[in-house]
Amino acid sequence: MTIKTILGNNDFTEFLRGKKATFFLSLSNTKTANIAGITQAGIPGMIHLTPTLDAEFLCTGEVRSLKNIATTPKGVPTPGLITRAAHLLHPFSSLALLDLGLEVKPKIDYFPLYDFGIEPSGSIDTGANIDAMELFEKGVEFAEEYFCRSDYIILGESVPSGTTTALATSLALGYDTHDKFSSSFKNVPTDIKQHVVAQALSGCEGIDDLFEKLSRVSDNMLIFNAGLVLGLQKRKITTVLAGGTQMAALLLVINSILKHTEQSISGHNLALCTTKWVHEDPNSEIKKLLEMVDFPVNAYYADFDFSLTEHPALKLYDEGEAKEGVGAGGALMYACLNGITQEQITRKVESFLG
Amino acid sequence: MTIKTILGNNDFTEFLRGKKATFFLSLSNTKTANIAGITQAGIPGMIHLTPTLDAEFLCTGEVRSLKNIATTPKGVPTPGLITRAAHLLHPFSSLALLDLGLEVKPKIDYFPLYDFGIEPSGSIDTGANIDAMELFEKGVEFAEEYFCRSDYIILGESVPSGTTTALATSLALGYDTHDKFSSSFKNVPTDIKQHVVAQALSGCEGIDDLFEKLSRVSDNMLIFNAGLVLGLQKRKITTVLAGGTQMAALLLVINSILKHTEQSISGHNLALCTTKWVHEDPNSEIKKLLEMVDFPVNAYYADFDFSLTEHPALKLYDEGEAKEGVGAGGALMYACLNGITQEQITRKVESFLG
Repeated sequence: MTIKTILGNNDFTEFLRGKKATFFLSLSNTKTANIAGITQAGIPGMIHLTPTLDAEFLCTGEVRSLKNIATTPKGVPTPGLITRAAHLLHPFSSLALLDLGLEVKPKIDYFPLYDFGIEPSGSIDTGANIDAMELFEKGVEFAEEYFCRSDYIILGESVPSGTTTALATSLALGYDTHDKFSSSFKNVPTDIKQHVVAQALSGCEGIDDLFEKLSRVSDNMLIFNAGLVLGLQKRKITTVLAGGTQMAALLLVINSILKHTEQSISGHNLALCTTKWVHEDPNSEIKKLLEMVDFPVNAYYADFDFSLTEHPALKLYDEGEAKEGVGAGGALMYACLNGITQEQITRKVESFLG
Repeated sequence: MTIKTILGNNDFTEFLRGKKATFFLSLSNTKTANIAGITQAGIPGMIHLTPTLDAEFLCTGEVRSLKNIATTPKGVPTPGLITRAAHLLHPFSSLALLDLGLEVKPKIDYFPLYDFGIEPSGSIDTGANIDAMELFEKGVEFAEEYFCRSDYIILGESVPSGTTTALATSLALGYDTHDKFSSSFKNVPTDIKQHVVAQALSGCEGIDDLFEKLSRVSDNMLIFNAGLVLGLQKRKITTVLAGGTQMAALLLVINSILKHTEQSISGHNLALCTTKWVHEDPNSEIKKLLEMVDFPVNAYYADFDFSLTEHPALKLYDEGEAKEGVGAGGALMYACLNGITQEQITRKVESFLG
C-alpha cells in the first residue's frame, strides 16, 4: 500500500510519516437523506442513524443504537470499518466526535463529543434552513480554541446524502461541477439527485449573498468545517481532509469564502486524501473539482483495494458500490505512513464481518 | 536481526526499545572528495551530489537532483536505501536535515532543512579552510535551542570522502589511528589516501591549537557535530551516533575538545551504532578507535546483512564494497528495537531497486 499523488507532490505526506494524528469525525444529518432513493449510505428507513452508528463503531467497535453495522441495501458495509481497522492497527493519538446536527447522539462514554447546539439541517429541495454565518463562525471559534496535542489532524465525515448537498452547494457557488461528484451508489440515481439539486438551486435564484446561498442549499458539515479548516490554517495546524468529493466541495466552499472576504491561504498545511475507489470512479472527477480551487492543494489517494479478500461484501467496494466515508481515505493514509500493509488492513476488516 | 555490543553493555539499547527517535542527517561537502580515486561514495564527476541525493531519497523516496539513485562505480547503491527502508517500516518520529555546507541544496518541501550559513570545506591536502571555533559553537548553539519532541536522537551523516578527513583529523589530534579507518571501497586506495592525509598533516606542522588544527584538516560534519553532541549531552538528550569510523572520529574530536577545555562527560546518554559490515571490516578497527576515547562509550552494531537477497547490487555489501553511511547502522538498530526483521528490511530495500 502506498500513497499516490493526485495534485502537488509527495513531500506533504512524507513529512507526516511516523507522526501522530488526531482523528476528527464530523457527524451530521440533513433531511435531504429522507428523500427516497437519494442515498445508499445506510439502512432504508434508518438512514439518519448512519453517522451515529459510524461514530459508535469507530470509537468502540460496537454499534449500540442498532443491532447491526450499517450496511447499504446491497449489503455493503460502511467504510467506517476501514477507519476502525486503521485505528486498531496503528491507533490515532485520539478520536474526537463533532456533533454537527445529529438526530440521535451516539452512545459513547469517555470520547469527546463536541456539542455546538447545532440542529440537523433541512432538506435542500425545500431549503436547508441553516444559519450559515453563525455555523461558520462556530467552526472558526472551535479551531481557535482547540488545543492540538498531535502532529496533525485528520478530518473525516459521516453525512448521509452529503454528496447531493455538496453538489448543490458547489453549483450554487458558481462552480461548474455537473457530473463531477461521487455517490455511495455504483449506478448513481441521477434523476432523483438532479431533480433535488435543481429544486435546491431554484430556491437560490436571485440571491447574491454567499452565506445566504449556503443557508439554503448546503449542509452543516460543509459550513462548520469551512470555518474549522480556515481557523486551523490560521494557526498553521496541519490538516488532512479525509474524504472524496464532499471534501473537495469543502475546499470549494473555503475558496468562495476566501474570495468573498478578500483573504487567501497558502494551502501549505492542508491536504486532501481519499480512496482509490473515489480516484478511479468513472462517475466523478475529484481532480477536476480540486483544480477549481484557487490556492494550491495537495491531494492524494491511498492505493488500497479489496483485491486480497474473497469476502463478497467487501468485493462490492472494488465493484464501485461504496467508495469513501468516515475518513477512510485519510485513515488508510495514516496506516500506510505508519508501516501498516494492505494485507493487515484487509484481515482486520474481514475480522469485523466474521 | 539483533543488536550486538561492541563496547559497554546492552542496557542502553534495551532501554530505547519501543521508544521514538528523531533522525538527524548531517550533510556536507568537502572538496577533498574531488581528488580522483579517493572515494567510491557516488557517481564519478558528481560525487558532490551524494549528500543532496541521499537527503532527497531518505525524505521522499525520490532522487530529484539527478535521475538515478546514487551508486558507486561498481553499482553499489547508497546505504541510504537501508535507512529509508527502516523509516518506511517503522517511521522515525521526524526527519531533520542539517546543511553543514552543501554544494547543492536538496529539493524538498516541508522537512526542516537547518541552514547555518556554512560553506563546503576545502580539500585537506591544501587546507580545509574552516573556522572551526565558530562552527563548533554553531553546533553547541543549535543543541541548546533545539526542542526535542522524541525520546532520543539518531545522528547520521552523508559526507563523501569523510573517512579520509576523519583519518586526517584523528591523526592531527595525536591519536594513533593508522590502518583503523574504514572506507567506501573494498580495496582501499591506500596510496592516494595516505598521500592526501600526509599532505594535510604537513599543513599542521608546528600548530598546537586544537581548533586551528581542525580548521585545516577536518570537515564540517565532525566539527559542527562535536558541538552538537556536547550540547545535547549537557541537556541529557540521548543521542545515537549512527555511523562507523567517521562517528568514532567524532568521538575522538569530542574527547580532545573535552581535554582541551578541561571538561568531562559521563557518556551515559551517548552511544554509537554501526553496521555489521563496518564491524567485520578487515581494513578498519572501530573498536580500537573507540577505546582511545577517555570517557565510557557504548557501541553496537546491527547484526544485519544481505544474506536473504539474491540481488547482485546488494550482495556487494556482503562482499565489502560498501559498509555504512546515511546512518544505516543506527536506522537498523531503530528498526530492530521496534520489531522489524531482517527479512522485512531486505524486501523493502529490494523494492527500491525494482
